[in-house]
Amino acid sequence: MEKDKIASEFRLLQDFICSELEALDGAAHFQEDIWEREGGGGGRTRIIQLGGLIEKGGVNFSEVEGKVSDEMKRSMGIQADSFYATGVSIVLHPENPHVPIIHMNVRYFELSNGNSWFGGGIDLTPHYIIPEKATEFHKDLKDICDKYHSSFYSKFKDWADDYFFIPHRNETRGIGGIFFDHLKPGEPISKEDLLQFCLELGRAFPLIYRAQAEDRRSLSVSERDKVWQSLRRGRYVEFNLVNDRGTKFGLVSGGRTESILMSMPPRANWEYCFVPEKDSEEEFTLHWLRTKHDYIQQ
Amino acid sequence: MEKDKIASEFRLLQDFICSELEALDGAAHFQEDIWEREGGGGGRTRIIQLGGLIEKGGVNFSEVEGKVSDEMKRSMGIQADSFYATGVSIVLHPENPHVPIIHMNVRYFELSNGNSWFGGGIDLTPHYIIPEKATEFHKDLKDICDKYHSSFYSKFKDWADDYFFIPHRNETRGIGGIFFDHLKPGEPISKEDLLQFCLELGRAFPLIYRAQAEDRRSLSVSERDKVWQSLRRGRYVEFNLVNDRGTKFGLVSGGRTESILMSMPPRANWEYCFVPEKDSEEEFTLHWLRTKHDYIQQ
Repeated sequence: MEKDKIASEFRLLQDFICSELEALDGAAHFQEDIWEREGGGGGRTRIIQLGGLIEKGGVNFSEVEGKVSDEMKRSMGIQADSFYATGVSIVLHPENPHVPIIHMNVRYFELSNGNSWFGGGIDLTPHYIIPEKATEFHKDLKDICDKYHSSFYSKFKDWADDYFFIPHRNETRGIGGIFFDHLKPGEPISKEDLLQFCLELGRAFPLIYRAQAEDRRSLSVSERDKVWQSLRRGRYVEFNLVNDRGTKFGLVSGGRTESILMSMPPRANWEYCFVPEKDSEEEFTLHWLRTKHDYIQQ
Repeated sequence: MEKDKIASEFRLLQDFICSELEALDGAAHFQEDIWEREGGGGGRTRIIQLGGLIEKGGVNFSEVEGKVSDEMKRSMGIQADSFYATGVSIVLHPENPHVPIIHMNVRYFELSNGNSWFGGGIDLTPHYIIPEKATEFHKDLKDICDKYHSSFYSKFKDWADDYFFIPHRNETRGIGGIFFDHLKPGEPISKEDLLQFCLELGRAFPLIYRAQAEDRRSLSVSERDKVWQSLRRGRYVEFNLVNDRGTKFGLVSGGRTESILMSMPPRANWEYCFVPEKDSEEEFTLHWLRTKHDYIQQ
């Protein structure tokens, strides 16, 4: 399978997701920026703002190639002269705090030494955790994983728990989801099946988010809800800028800053030593973020 | 000179600065948290919020000691078993966008192998750059530097230009100031003089900030000023979480998160591909942030 075919599938995936998300949002449309990368390749960044559901969101497609820099050799342990990478990544910040933030990424990497692999994941960051909705989210992901390999869900769920963790806060970013990287052809499924797995995740993404958003997007919002949302967005910023390897790598390797930082919320707050009220929904959410959960068998 | 004496001087410096800043603020008072560090030592974090001038600010004193971790050996290149560190650090986010954000830090480090050094700096981040005020700020710093060594100002000014730079934005954080590190006794002045230099900087801090704030704190503020302030605070967050070695080191070495992240603004915004209006004050400020300046001889 040629890398051109994968990039072409990812490009169609971006089109499909944007079109579905516009339908879900019901008000705003994506604006597109086509950009080129100095070292080779480029991308299509699409941003949606001030919509009926989404306050700020981005769906990014990129296809880049070039020389493997010393920084990449060091941070990714790559032993090759040149690389190729293509992928789709998404972050959506909803306006209503009762709707979760969501992130998705699928990507394909190929080196001049012949190695190639897929990576990606979907994770959910509710401002307020509703255990039943978390179960629904994880079941949606498990259903897709199970179609490809019986080991995928539990392995990728644990990987997400490890990855989407903020050590300096001793909190997970949200309720996790799935995360995977370095999935090589045959480990354990064929290259074609790995691509189909990524594409099926991507195509399911709008439906998965609809299921999380639809029944909560019209809930009334208090000033206190907005304050909490801004504080949780602050944590999202901390994770992305301090802990997220993808963001860090993008920034130090000279990626397009505005496309990488499309993941930033429109607004975030920090309050010194914020402690939620006892027995509040905010405290309930923090409790869930501080321990590991099997959201399916809870 | 004993390290206890240095810590004691730094503690008094924190007291002095807090008292002067309360007088300058005119409305709010600092709240204090005394904390202990698991590996040894502790600190006094003082936070001021929703004041007459300062929307959110912190003045932190710490005196910590312990085993040199593998992380410290790697990131700081330290070859010793144990360390001692004491210092005062400050970040103030004013409410009025016409008043700059300011940061100061003085610190002393000592290793079990006998090595010891001072570090620190003061830098200013105006939301709107006023060249005459930038000159005044740099002159204030130069006057103090010149009293201790003729090489200090130009060396430390260049160091600040290099340090307070956001590569992924190709912008400086603000108008710089001075930054210094690893100043060892005799290089080029005595240990006692290095301490006095740090203390004099610290004692001058409230006056220096008063000179920047006093004539601008009552200027009227438009909605557009507030939006710009929030966007510049977003850049401040990016620098602190992505680029600032002190913050990164603190977070990965298990420092007290709330004391380290007292530097975060109360609120920050991100807007995809924000471009200021042509010939606006915002564009003028960005222009100054994108080139290096000799603010004294401009």
